[in-house]
Amino acid sequence: MAEEPVRSVAVLGAGVIGASWVAMFAARGIQVRVWDPQCGAAQIQAVIDGAAPALAAMGHPVDNALWTIVSSPIEAVHGADFVQENAPENLAMKRALFQQVTPVLGPRTVISSSTSGLMASAMQEGLDCADRILVGHPFNPPHMVPLVEVVGGRDTAPWAVERAVEFYRAVGKHPLKIDREVPGHVVDRLQAALFREMIHMIREGIATPEMIDQGMIYGPGLRWSVIGPCMQMHLSGGEAGVRHLLNHLGPAIESWWGHLGQPTIDDRAKDLMEEGMRREAGGRSVAELCAERDKALLGVLKALEENPRPGEV
Amino acid sequence: MAEEPVRSVAVLGAGVIGASWVAMFAARGIQVRVWDPQCGAAQIQAVIDGAAPALAAMGHPVDNALWTIVSSPIEAVHGADFVQENAPENLAMKRALFQQVTPVLGPRTVISSSTSGLMASAMQEGLDCADRILVGHPFNPPHMVPLVEVVGGRDTAPWAVERAVEFYRAVGKHPLKIDREVPGHVVDRLQAALFREMIHMIREGIATPEMIDQGMIYGPGLRWSVIGPCMQMHLSGGEAGVRHLLNHLGPAIESWWGHLGQPTIDDRAKDLMEEGMRREAGGRSVAELCAERDKALLGVLKALEENPRPGEV
Repeated sequence: MAEEPVRSVAVLGAGVIGASWVAMFAARGIQVRVWDPQCGAAQIQAVIDGAAPALAAMGHPVDNALWTIVSSPIEAVHGADFVQENAPENLAMKRALFQQVTPVLGPRTVISSSTSGLMASAMQEGLDCADRILVGHPFNPPHMVPLVEVVGGRDTAPWAVERAVEFYRAVGKHPLKIDREVPGHVVDRLQAALFREMIHMIREGIATPEMIDQGMIYGPGLRWSVIGPCMQMHLSGGEAGVRHLLNHLGPAIESWWGHLGQPTIDDRAKDLMEEGMRREAGGRSVAELCAERDKALLGVLKALEENPRPGEV
Repeated sequence: MAEEPVRSVAVLGAGVIGASWVAMFAARGIQVRVWDPQCGAAQIQAVIDGAAPALAAMGHPVDNALWTIVSSPIEAVHGADFVQENAPENLAMKRALFQQVTPVLGPRTVISSSTSGLMASAMQEGLDCADRILVGHPFNPPHMVPLVEVVGGRDTAPWAVERAVEFYRAVGKHPLKIDREVPGHVVDRLQAALFREMIHMIREGIATPEMIDQGMIYGPGLRWSVIGPCMQMHLSGGEAGVRHLLNHLGPAIESWWGHLGQPTIDDRAKDLMEEGMRREAGGRSVAELCAERDKALLGVLKALEENPRPGEV
């Protein structure tokens, strides 16, 4: 049975991530009803206005007539074909929210949570709408970064996972379906591993935050926009490929693993990060930096449209 | 005292990395004398021909008249203003090579080692040319990725570090000067941390190599080409910046650290990586994949030239 396409979305929680979703959906012709207990219309509009130039440049101008703020989650979810939830990373709060909207939730309406820290099985356990709850984890800024990790829980219906994958693909995202639930899904675990060594080197005075940022944008980060870390190893191995590389460099990599740090995110780490970002920002506000980021990211996305990467699917 | 600019370079070792250096130098008007005990002219020419289109498109066509193969390291280093060494990752072999060329090494000629796994202090200890030995660690492919980590050892003269930094900058690279020697320098430690979790998830069946590559090129890797991981945290914190983000998400990140794996690079890891790369390559040779990578990377580099990133210096 072919599903009806998603025409209306409820966005629950409209902070930086939620409001970016709103902009992205409204740029793709989707009706959006937004609910947030704290963020007012002006705040949400500001995020959407920040996202609008990049979306327009990608050929998808934001239609502000398509989104509207409502005063309760019930009102947002009533009649919606899809729910994107971006509440704070608090399990009890999310579960209460899901329970609250269940009476008005359509039988084929998926609740997709933007959570990076929680798993679907924990969010859905014992709820009447458990079969329709899953993780749809975006990467900031959601209106520009294509990846969305889609992970169901123990009780998620397979059709719900498929519906989320199809919907994200239809609005131009790159859904990555993950079959096993683990903390941090897949991609945030890779990020977390890198963050750990980054915090370690900053706390130990081996490198400043600016050095790490420069190292990434002129080095591996630049490269990882084009080839992933596995293919990187494969190509570094010459014609003999990844096995040759692992035979040759594996011992060095394993020896570095023994030297990696195990820091904590304490006040020292926060102070050093904050000082580094003050230097790197050089007086620019976060909004200004985001605008620069979006402009550069837009250029990269357009370049990659014209020059497909070897690992694209 | 202003230094004479570097006009001639000796390249010792001309595998994938060394030959890419040759192409890059010859595209920047530098005379290059190449020595390699195994790679023949045809093999070196093939790597240079592979690099040439991207270099030409970046406005720096390779001048094949500028490089020549010589039959001994002495002959390569004699009269050279700079030495880029790319021998195998073997400390004794590198030390023997440095000792061998010392008699013909100019008093202001720096030996810069492409090593990722060794430290300058170990390579230079007790050698007569110790003051001129340092690490100049590129990222594959050196003819395209701008980053070069420059790290001196205990006995490296400060002028030698400055000379390497200036030279790399003069040929269009982005030198990152690192003041403290640690295994893996700085940037390979970040990569190694990510590799560890990548190998862990692949060995445990949580994700395939293709899933990890897709997650990176559509997600954080794409983003890290534009903003580094520290600024990413800063911008995700909203106007309150990185401290707010660390206060908010720090506990989740720390909890993931507790779940990260500690794999070894065993046969199972190698088999799974190799199978994944066979699927991802889909019949394309490493050379074909490299050509696709270079084309996409070229597009990204050009886009970033027109759209500067917020963390550029």
